[in-house]
Amino acid sequence: MPATAPRVDGERLLRRLAALGSIGDTGDGGVCRLALTDDDRDGRDLVVSWMDELGLRVEVDAIGNVVGTWPADATDPAVMMGSHIDTVRTGGRYDGNLGVLAGLEVIETVRSAGVVPDRPLAVAFFTDEEGSRFAPDMLGSLVRVGGLTTEAALDIEAVDGTRLGDELERIGYAGPVPCPAPPPAAFVELHIEQGPVLEREGVTIGAVTGVQGISWTEYVIEGQSNHAGTTPMSLRHDPGYVAAQIAVFVRGLANKLGDPQVGTTGLIELHPNFVNVIPAQATIVVDLRNTDDAVLRDAEARTARFVEEVAAAEGVTVTSRVLARFGPVQFDPGVVQLVEATAAALGHSVRRMPSGAGHDAQMLARVCPSGMVFVPSIGGVSHNPAEATTAADLIAGADVFLSVVLALAGTPPLGEHR
Amino acid sequence: MPATAPRVDGERLLRRLAALGSIGDTGDGGVCRLALTDDDRDGRDLVVSWMDELGLRVEVDAIGNVVGTWPADATDPAVMMGSHIDTVRTGGRYDGNLGVLAGLEVIETVRSAGVVPDRPLAVAFFTDEEGSRFAPDMLGSLVRVGGLTTEAALDIEAVDGTRLGDELERIGYAGPVPCPAPPPAAFVELHIEQGPVLEREGVTIGAVTGVQGISWTEYVIEGQSNHAGTTPMSLRHDPGYVAAQIAVFVRGLANKLGDPQVGTTGLIELHPNFVNVIPAQATIVVDLRNTDDAVLRDAEARTARFVEEVAAAEGVTVTSRVLARFGPVQFDPGVVQLVEATAAALGHSVRRMPSGAGHDAQMLARVCPSGMVFVPSIGGVSHNPAEATTAADLIAGADVFLSVVLALAGTPPLGEHR
Repeated sequence: MPATAPRVDGERLLRRLAALGSIGDTGDGGVCRLALTDDDRDGRDLVVSWMDELGLRVEVDAIGNVVGTWPADATDPAVMMGSHIDTVRTGGRYDGNLGVLAGLEVIETVRSAGVVPDRPLAVAFFTDEEGSRFAPDMLGSLVRVGGLTTEAALDIEAVDGTRLGDELERIGYAGPVPCPAPPPAAFVELHIEQGPVLEREGVTIGAVTGVQGISWTEYVIEGQSNHAGTTPMSLRHDPGYVAAQIAVFVRGLANKLGDPQVGTTGLIELHPNFVNVIPAQATIVVDLRNTDDAVLRDAEARTARFVEEVAAAEGVTVTSRVLARFGPVQFDPGVVQLVEATAAALGHSVRRMPSGAGHDAQMLARVCPSGMVFVPSIGGVSHNPAEATTAADLIAGADVFLSVVLALAGTPPLGEHR
Repeated sequence: MPATAPRVDGERLLRRLAALGSIGDTGDGGVCRLALTDDDRDGRDLVVSWMDELGLRVEVDAIGNVVGTWPADATDPAVMMGSHIDTVRTGGRYDGNLGVLAGLEVIETVRSAGVVPDRPLAVAFFTDEEGSRFAPDMLGSLVRVGGLTTEAALDIEAVDGTRLGDELERIGYAGPVPCPAPPPAAFVELHIEQGPVLEREGVTIGAVTGVQGISWTEYVIEGQSNHAGTTPMSLRHDPGYVAAQIAVFVRGLANKLGDPQVGTTGLIELHPNFVNVIPAQATIVVDLRNTDDAVLRDAEARTARFVEEVAAAEGVTVTSRVLARFGPVQFDPGVVQLVEATAAALGHSVRRMPSGAGHDAQMLARVCPSGMVFVPSIGGVSHNPAEATTAADLIAGADVFLSVVLALAGTPPLGEHR
């Protein structure tokens, strides 16, 4: 394969990434295209214009997911590529966008070679993957596979108080295709790693084995607000102290359970949050992730027990609420094997690895053989204007992606046709 | 003394407290009169109108402290009463206000009895005691006694970006009396306890022995922001974890050092404060207080050492900044004894106690014999719309205050004149 393997047009891919990144440009290298905003609409319109130029059949479903299929008159289940083009508020140019534009690039490359694969090809972008404006995240792909009804999803209220269905209508992306939609033949997603592992190990391609299970639990702790100077320690009921104990516990728990268990308390809020006032209320969200659901459940149970104990000891009350819970996902072993073998055959270093972040591919994995290809994130950074991947790695990832998709579509490598 | 002891007009005192409390009324029983705002000006104008009605000589100094002296033509150093009438944003009706209006009440009672004490009497309200708008707190009394130059104080910038001197001019309280001003003969302040001790012990009067030393240190911790799902525990540099460790340490330290040591971390802020992002930065302020300066210094040193150790272990950097540092203050033993004996003679339960909060009296203690009288706070609550003291306790406190002031002014109890 190496001598004759098909290659994407790297310059064209980078040009499209730059063009899409200029919509919602935050001026610091970053991008803000929150789901279903005007900027998201402008980004969607641009990608749809490229789909039209490529002669794809463009279909929009009831939750605003957009699928472009080639050939336009295909009726068989397609090998679907895709990801998302919405971003977090302080997003970068690659998270999601890469997977969508690499999908376009694959189709353009195949079309230019004059080849028609056994199976149709499709490229999709899914609504509100980030969940920054409408919770939960991965919303569009979840609805696409029937994990949430369209009606329930359209009624979701944004952090800014608007209704998802209204915003979808407003930007012109409430489509006619009902959800759940018929499953594709297979699904593959190219994505930046969003973590430091590939860069640290000097590896170019990640063959993603699955996605960690994710558990988010919010604890709202109510204590007794009082003067920091006049309240003896023995009379305190300090919710901030309990929140701090939880944060320290979560770190210790993750260390004790060992890799791949991670535990994070990235959100802590005290009220009123004054130097000299014992707070009345503290909020802390515990984020636990593991590829092994049994270990994840154990971590959840230990955390809940600890919170109960320390709250009782401090004389505070705690209300807990599960904000998100997705069990671990295993990608199709055949697809994982194909990604690994393809990368190696193309001469790239490759390792199997789980994904620590959630992705649309984990939703599609419910209905069809699915997998992912990771490329390195410089400094492990994402959701940040500094999010970046070298041009060489972007193109290497897209080349691997192309060959994987062609293999899944039952088409021999393009090189053999030349 | 009990049979013939002088008494304030409790109804009149309560009426004035209610009238002043109606300015900046927040509608929930609370008051918001931040220093040098329009509401503060309206409160000042009302108190000055009462001073005028009582025939006091009203003088405003360069930092906006207002002193009313009786008799108006007195030239000798006065026995000064006073406190403040500015409030925190979510303040109550008694903190500060009680001490000022009880001072008016003392003078009105004495004047009505037709008595002229050996020493003049004065009542003062000091600018920006709370420090909620302009740091540091106790600003006006600090400048009054020469602890900070007028020029430096006038240049202080508010949390809302305005300059103190400009705001003082704007509300018409930039006065001609230079600071530091000549010290009074003595200073006494009646104040609510702002803590739970008197209520819990069923004691009516606190003879305040001094004020705890206060130490506020801000730690700004810089780590490495990263994805909560994709960053292995061993690669984290999490400033939020370090802040949580500090909060837990401070509680343990205060417990270990024992009463009267207290330690609080009422302000914790993570940035960006997202569930699934290891924060880039955490800010935590450590509030340590003790009546013993040696123990307080030990607590500060242990905290600094701990912060250094945990920051090094986590691979984060820390910048520390002292936000406030006042050593413990001991009130004049004679004044403390006088308060205790007077309360007992009037038939009230009394205990000696330190103040956990800072007060203007601690600034005046630098230049003259000073002391304080505490009355109970219901539920120990202050800086809150629910801040309250029973009418009986307010009046008992004002009666003790009256007799203490008269004794300091060299005037026998009024009853003996009747």
